[in-house]
Amino acid sequence: MTRGRFITLEGGEGVGKSTQAAILTEHLQSLGIEVLRTREPGGSENAEALRDLVVKGEAGRWSPVAETLLMYAARADHLERMIRPALARGAWVVCDRFADSTRAYQGAGGGVAPAVIEGIDAAVVGGDQPDLTLVFDMPVEIGLDRAFGRDMFEARFESKGHAFHQRLRDHFLAIARAEPGRCVIVDAAGQPDAVADAVWKAMQARFPELAAAAPHLTSGRHA
Amino acid sequence: MTRGRFITLEGGEGVGKSTQAAILTEHLQSLGIEVLRTREPGGSENAEALRDLVVKGEAGRWSPVAETLLMYAARADHLERMIRPALARGAWVVCDRFADSTRAYQGAGGGVAPAVIEGIDAAVVGGDQPDLTLVFDMPVEIGLDRAFGRDMFEARFESKGHAFHQRLRDHFLAIARAEPGRCVIVDAAGQPDAVADAVWKAMQARFPELAAAAPHLTSGRHA
Repeated sequence: MTRGRFITLEGGEGVGKSTQAAILTEHLQSLGIEVLRTREPGGSENAEALRDLVVKGEAGRWSPVAETLLMYAARADHLERMIRPALARGAWVVCDRFADSTRAYQGAGGGVAPAVIEGIDAAVVGGDQPDLTLVFDMPVEIGLDRAFGRDMFEARFESKGHAFHQRLRDHFLAIARAEPGRCVIVDAAGQPDAVADAVWKAMQARFPELAAAAPHLTSGRHA
Repeated sequence: MTRGRFITLEGGEGVGKSTQAAILTEHLQSLGIEVLRTREPGGSENAEALRDLVVKGEAGRWSPVAETLLMYAARADHLERMIRPALARGAWVVCDRFADSTRAYQGAGGGVAPAVIEGIDAAVVGGDQPDLTLVFDMPVEIGLDRAFGRDMFEARFESKGHAFHQRLRDHFLAIARAEPGRCVIVDAAGQPDAVADAVWKAMQARFPELAAAAPHLTSGRHA
């Protein structure tokens, strides 16, 4: 059995990760590929319980270091129970947020030292790093408008203001530039179909087995 | 304001830590010292919520690495909200279990590498290491009999068997021997009053300010 591929979608608030995760999942499934579409924090029963603890409650309920530890505890469970078994049976994993979100939100945003995060990451994620990370990028003000408009903004980040979110955007871009073998920056400011085209091009570039199987992404499918 | 002292009580199941924490607290309070008596996992509202997640549920609910991260997330909160403020206002902290329990249970018992635990410990506990750690030691079979007899044994450790608990005991002793400046091994096999005498001798040896203030521990107080 060929091991599956591990794809993560990253970026700030309102950049359209969930929409793109749905489109990408549908497209892979249309090629007969088993897909585990999941998200973080959460994705397994234990991890969802931790998500509730972290996401609910007032801003500042947890220190950034405590949040980092909780995120990685959830990630350890998610990896062990869901992601690793899926990859082992040949399924592809499409995960809405993963370790780069901890690096951006708790690291660059919260001030947790990179060495602390990377030490924990090595223990928890180890060799199971994503095969491809799609970093969705758009100007902060557009993303925030979208997130507020859809009422899906987590309360604990609402009060943070533009500078905080700009720091997150800058850090996501810095990660992508530092790891070009893993990450692709996707311009997320366009219409969903245009973004989906860019996503699929990145997929084909990274995974040659997709180039022959699906040379064209049907335009208008998601119009 | 003189910073308070941070005292932790460690050891395996049934060694009498809670009883000794109560006696030690009472004795310090009789000298006019403010004492925060607390425990881990737990000790703050957030940490108690994590304690529930970790302690409840079936054995093996969390991997040892996930447990380590949850323990340190709880510890970060406990330190930030309870322990550091108490020490800063001059109170003494008497804490039933702390980081050495993670080293023993999740490290020696669960197989989490020491370097992983120490990296996290440096980020969470940092310079706020205990001033004195009392390591309560007794033969495993006696401790297990006591713990079972009092029906206070955590379900997830019940099934582990003698060899597991012997590994914990050996690791607590190894920690104490490796850090003689912080740790004192207390023979916990005797009667509570005799153990309390040994605890107080260790306290006086470590904290000279106690030698003059309380040269005698009243015998029979706890008979």
